[in-house]
Amino acid sequence: MPILSPTVELTKELISRPSVTPEDAGCQELLIEKLEALGFVIERLPFEDVSNFWARRGTQSPLFCFAGHTDVVPTGPVENWSHPPFEPTIVEGYLYGRGTADMKGSIAAFITSLERFIEHHPDHEGSIALLITSDEEGPFINGTTRVIDHLEARQEKIDWCIVGEPSSTEKTGDIIKNGRRGSLSGKLKVAGIQGHVAYPHLVRNPIHEAVPALTELAATVWDEGNDFFPPTSFQISNIHAGTGANNVVPGEVEIDFNFRFSTEVTAEQLKESVRDTLDRHNLEWDIDWILSGNPFLTAEGSLVEAAQQAIKAVTGMDTELSTAGGTSDGRFIAPTGAQVLELGPVNATIHQIDERVKVKDLDILSDLYENILARLLSSTK
Amino acid sequence: MPILSPTVELTKELISRPSVTPEDAGCQELLIEKLEALGFVIERLPFEDVSNFWARRGTQSPLFCFAGHTDVVPTGPVENWSHPPFEPTIVEGYLYGRGTADMKGSIAAFITSLERFIEHHPDHEGSIALLITSDEEGPFINGTTRVIDHLEARQEKIDWCIVGEPSSTEKTGDIIKNGRRGSLSGKLKVAGIQGHVAYPHLVRNPIHEAVPALTELAATVWDEGNDFFPPTSFQISNIHAGTGANNVVPGEVEIDFNFRFSTEVTAEQLKESVRDTLDRHNLEWDIDWILSGNPFLTAEGSLVEAAQQAIKAVTGMDTELSTAGGTSDGRFIAPTGAQVLELGPVNATIHQIDERVKVKDLDILSDLYENILARLLSSTK
Repeated sequence: MPILSPTVELTKELISRPSVTPEDAGCQELLIEKLEALGFVIERLPFEDVSNFWARRGTQSPLFCFAGHTDVVPTGPVENWSHPPFEPTIVEGYLYGRGTADMKGSIAAFITSLERFIEHHPDHEGSIALLITSDEEGPFINGTTRVIDHLEARQEKIDWCIVGEPSSTEKTGDIIKNGRRGSLSGKLKVAGIQGHVAYPHLVRNPIHEAVPALTELAATVWDEGNDFFPPTSFQISNIHAGTGANNVVPGEVEIDFNFRFSTEVTAEQLKESVRDTLDRHNLEWDIDWILSGNPFLTAEGSLVEAAQQAIKAVTGMDTELSTAGGTSDGRFIAPTGAQVLELGPVNATIHQIDERVKVKDLDILSDLYENILARLLSSTK
Repeated sequence: MPILSPTVELTKELISRPSVTPEDAGCQELLIEKLEALGFVIERLPFEDVSNFWARRGTQSPLFCFAGHTDVVPTGPVENWSHPPFEPTIVEGYLYGRGTADMKGSIAAFITSLERFIEHHPDHEGSIALLITSDEEGPFINGTTRVIDHLEARQEKIDWCIVGEPSSTEKTGDIIKNGRRGSLSGKLKVAGIQGHVAYPHLVRNPIHEAVPALTELAATVWDEGNDFFPPTSFQISNIHAGTGANNVVPGEVEIDFNFRFSTEVTAEQLKESVRDTLDRHNLEWDIDWILSGNPFLTAEGSLVEAAQQAIKAVTGMDTELSTAGGTSDGRFIAPTGAQVLELGPVNATIHQIDERVKVKDLDILSDLYENILARLLSSTK
């Protein structure tokens, strides 16, 4: 049996703790133990049922931060897994287990990169922090956002932040996310007048009235995107009307929709445009809006540069900047003014049965993080 | 306490039998007893859980038939009724109870009109029949349609048929229904490709693809109607898509729609037109069609004439012919070649809480039926 690297060993230890959101299952105490040994000052910040902690080494600026989450999504049917999801198993070079890619492998690589970096640079420049939550896969109410509020209240400011989200698509480091689109959802209700289908002059069919407006919204070009963002997209996710009876015209239709939007538009502009369309079609409508996050972008600067150079140095690849994909906790950190990047393993199997990463990619990831730390917080670039 | 007419007494007896579809609750045996006393030959025709009977007096042509149903729709919340729905109650000139208007009052009027007519015309011309079912408000599978099949099989042919459906809107006899629109329903499924809203290039949103076609269908003028029928109407009654999650584009949308159609189009033409529209929009679609009934029309002839003259003679009103409103069992009788009319009490309260008719309207209705019988089956017009 080959000897496993500290990063792989730690990933395995984390996987074996079944920390389905918001459970932490002891992951954070394991990390805290290792960070305390490295000289980090720990601040446990539980909010409601969510475990979080903030760890900091040093008091100087600039402040570099690793952000991540110990919670994982549910396993789905355990019998469909090739190996029990909470029993880390290595087969043919892959480590299987829930959370290997999203994002216990990254968390382990945070720790081991720090162990090596601090061994070589015990008196590094600036400060290093970790912001760890157990609520990233959940309602994201009592996790990163609460910790950030806490830091903001005492004016503790992150300069650079690497989020360990699995950003890579084929090889570790091939893509880093330097921003994310905004996400704006709406629950639209269009009212009509209910009645019997046999008396069409007595009804006002809300489905008939809504579909021309929906047709227009689905066909609208919201923007063309820009160098960093794909065009803003609009998708209807749910539509429901009707009692089941096929002789009754319903009194209302409910439509859920979602925008993923670029920095070319604002949430307010999108809202205004939707309202205009509905009014132009003379609909009797109501919308509940939910803004999950504004778009953010770390276009350039020392963090992007350090990450690009580190990836080139460790893997030989030129990495690609991207803002595609779902939301992440980066959206809560970027508004504080921090430069924020997401860099983590290949995301092909996240949230799926048989989630896995290549064993050697965990070591590459740890090397990448160490290299970035060295570029930002030491004179040995 | 005033003495009640035989029609009102019989209506009350029927109301007090809680014959919610397909229950008959003894209504039909009560009618059979009275019809046997008048010389009718009774044929009980139960099919599955549905009670039906065919009663005939005489063997000659032409054959006049009263058609009706002893079943009633459910009461809804009994506590909302001013009087218990199965305890017939007269207040301020109205008889309250489930089925008073739809259509136990008509059934009682059938019987009492026959009692008087046969007393005066024991040797009437032609024959008289009653086709009574307990399945009109239900799935209409084992009711009138089965009895008609039975009659057709032995080539027993109805010439004139009065269905006791509540056709009147303000005064008894103000409207007779001389036909009904057809009813064609479709269950449409439009397929797309499911996926995450954050990756719009990987999905094909079936809602977005369907709404332009639905917009076109909702705006289509199918025909202009004619002297007897209002224009054909199209109504979407149900639309459903989505898992509830607002970050998932669904893989399919389901749409129920219904046509009420005139004699200016056929069901086949409507189907063809819908298919064309869906294909023109390049949809991946599937439809289950249900043809509940083709339109029928009794445009003119001795039955219409007798009914118009009877209403004029009894009430002084000029009646109006109409084909509006929901379906009725007339659609199963008309295709045999019979002239079919619907004539019954005011329909304002049918299927509602506090269903009721004016007490004196029941006597008017009985007089109308008797007058029609006299015009068709005796030389005393």
